[in-house]
Amino acid sequence: MPEFLILSSPEQALKKWFSAMPNNPRQSEEIDSILGLNRFTSSPICSKKPYPEFSRSTVDGYAVRAVDTFGAGESLPAYFSVIGEVPMGKKPEFASTVGSAALIHTGGMLPVGADAVVMLEYAQLSKNGELEVVRAIAPNENVIQMGEDVVAGQIVIPVGSRLRPAEIGGLMSLGQIKVQVVCRPVIGILSSGDEVIEPTIEPQPGQVRDINSFSLSAQIEEWGGLPIHLGIALDRAEALHIALASALENCDAVIVTAGSSASIRDLTAQVIDEMGTPGVLVHGVNIHPGKPTILAVCNGKAVVGLPGNPVSALVIARRFVKPLIEHLSGCAKVFPLPTLPAILTVNLPSQSGREDWWPVRLLTTPQGMNADPIFYKSNLIFNYTQADGLIQISADATGLIAGSHVDVYPL
Amino acid sequence: MPEFLILSSPEQALKKWFSAMPNNPRQSEEIDSILGLNRFTSSPICSKKPYPEFSRSTVDGYAVRAVDTFGAGESLPAYFSVIGEVPMGKKPEFASTVGSAALIHTGGMLPVGADAVVMLEYAQLSKNGELEVVRAIAPNENVIQMGEDVVAGQIVIPVGSRLRPAEIGGLMSLGQIKVQVVCRPVIGILSSGDEVIEPTIEPQPGQVRDINSFSLSAQIEEWGGLPIHLGIALDRAEALHIALASALENCDAVIVTAGSSASIRDLTAQVIDEMGTPGVLVHGVNIHPGKPTILAVCNGKAVVGLPGNPVSALVIARRFVKPLIEHLSGCAKVFPLPTLPAILTVNLPSQSGREDWWPVRLLTTPQGMNADPIFYKSNLIFNYTQADGLIQISADATGLIAGSHVDVYPL
Repeated sequence: MPEFLILSSPEQALKKWFSAMPNNPRQSEEIDSILGLNRFTSSPICSKKPYPEFSRSTVDGYAVRAVDTFGAGESLPAYFSVIGEVPMGKKPEFASTVGSAALIHTGGMLPVGADAVVMLEYAQLSKNGELEVVRAIAPNENVIQMGEDVVAGQIVIPVGSRLRPAEIGGLMSLGQIKVQVVCRPVIGILSSGDEVIEPTIEPQPGQVRDINSFSLSAQIEEWGGLPIHLGIALDRAEALHIALASALENCDAVIVTAGSSASIRDLTAQVIDEMGTPGVLVHGVNIHPGKPTILAVCNGKAVVGLPGNPVSALVIARRFVKPLIEHLSGCAKVFPLPTLPAILTVNLPSQSGREDWWPVRLLTTPQGMNADPIFYKSNLIFNYTQADGLIQISADATGLIAGSHVDVYPL
Repeated sequence: MPEFLILSSPEQALKKWFSAMPNNPRQSEEIDSILGLNRFTSSPICSKKPYPEFSRSTVDGYAVRAVDTFGAGESLPAYFSVIGEVPMGKKPEFASTVGSAALIHTGGMLPVGADAVVMLEYAQLSKNGELEVVRAIAPNENVIQMGEDVVAGQIVIPVGSRLRPAEIGGLMSLGQIKVQVVCRPVIGILSSGDEVIEPTIEPQPGQVRDINSFSLSAQIEEWGGLPIHLGIALDRAEALHIALASALENCDAVIVTAGSSASIRDLTAQVIDEMGTPGVLVHGVNIHPGKPTILAVCNGKAVVGLPGNPVSALVIARRFVKPLIEHLSGCAKVFPLPTLPAILTVNLPSQSGREDWWPVRLLTTPQGMNADPIFYKSNLIFNYTQADGLIQISADATGLIAGSHVDVYPL
């Protein structure tokens, strides 16, 4: 039977799908902070102490009482007696008093009584050992005050934050060598198709090796999910039913890469729909490539039916699986994806009402970058590996004209 | 002594530094393809066989000889006798002859003799079992031909390619479950500073925990390097000399995060310069934050002296260490970093001649995104963790005016 679908726009599809997902508290685990890169915090991180814990100099110079420099200038220096040098990593054993100055290095701890640092450039030792200061400075000048970065009890990293290199450094500055993060969402990948075989097997005529399980698993890993291979199910309702039911027990979400025959396409949607309520929410999205996408929620768990063509599967995963993983990771801030500006080299026709994604090669020219579309087939993976990025043609456009400025999403 | 430096522009600095780096062949290793995400190929990947290995249907329909449909139309169907159904994953046991049609599913293998597939939509079984086809099709229509993606012997993934999800899927489609990749460049990180202590230790007055080793190591990992912690060297020439010499023996490149006193800053440059020829090439870059950056090549190995302030160290690492890791990874294609468009919320002054990087918060508004600069101190790491991205103020600008369109580099 020919396939007729009621198509949703990608935005409608996402909205409908996400509004059916429960907002369960995420499971969390404690890990070493240094292993936390790109994980998400499951609770706010507070600092027990102020940071820095003592007032520090931000320059090399002399720690003084600022008030003693007031009125000083090139023609009328202020004079100080040097009382010592602040040792790095130690508390100075002297205090600053009226008219006294202490040599201090960047990061050094201010002596009690001092509230500012005169830079070396504005200070000079005279022959009799006195220090001439030729510039007035304000209190707290060239000083980080105790608690200036963080006061005691302050939330330094909110819940749902991605741990980037700066956050990991910040945790270490507080001595927090362990951190509570959301468990990586476990995403099961179930392939189907009687013609699909494991890559280790030599294909017989009519057979092809599985691509999607592996490209998707790498993609899920890159987005912070924990991919689980669930093997290749045969194109029978019972086989798929059993495999999917077990997958849903063990995973936070499941991706089924559909077998490619019409019968199995229908069957996939039907089997997914049997897995729980509300079941299949979207079957068919007005997007190219990837029209026959299925989005479902079954008893609180998301299920995605991805097209079997490997290019379509990867494009659709960007559109739907990436936001799913962000959601399941408890990511608090999601921004649009960044792009590179380029000039389109040829006309690119599109179908009005449909969102198109075109793979492009990026070519550097003296005028900037050119985006050269790849005229691909969605079942040819090595067409897609030639692409450096994707461009989007929005649903309201019937195409893009050669010479247009386009935004390229790097791959 | 005050610090006086001769500043290079970031571009000059990079050029001078890279032109002194030898283009040694990279060490390579064989790994499992499924573990290859974001690694770089050390040799071109060829396909021994054509791909696909047999002609396949791209639709559900009937495999025929295209010539038998010529002239067919709505008013004058062509008639076929159905000779069977192509089983998925198997070679059909029959051949297509004049006037014969075989039911075939997407991905099915074309019978010998057939060269095109009529979509189900344009075919109908008549009551007497004959198939009516109401549209003429061209040879190869709805077919991927054998070898259409790849011909035998073709390079499918060039040397120096990043293995993205698509490449990993592609390798599996060829049965290449192992792949030769460039070894991850080993980047040693040496901290220095008498006041710097390990994060596990409770700081005494005057001491601070090490931030840079950990933020940089996470950053290096994110860029594909293999970070090695070399501990904290004391602020003495001999201590630094010994630590650096040993680091250079064991690493592909070394980062020294400078102690922050003037004496140790001078000392770092001097000790690096002693490590081999040509030695220190750049000391001082016209960039903010991060002016006192040191770039060196010592007997063929790159050494970077990063500023001790944690914000400066991360900003400078983006500018210099990221390209270094790409170079050492044998990355063949480097593109500019992608950005997000935003509107600057306030005036941002800058110094002409100096390239400035400002951390910004991104705020979503109905009109798009606003970039709200963070007025930070480069030694306060939790100032920086509030940033969602960075904006660049180029050297020829004296600032950016509120309301300007800016490109934000996401962090």
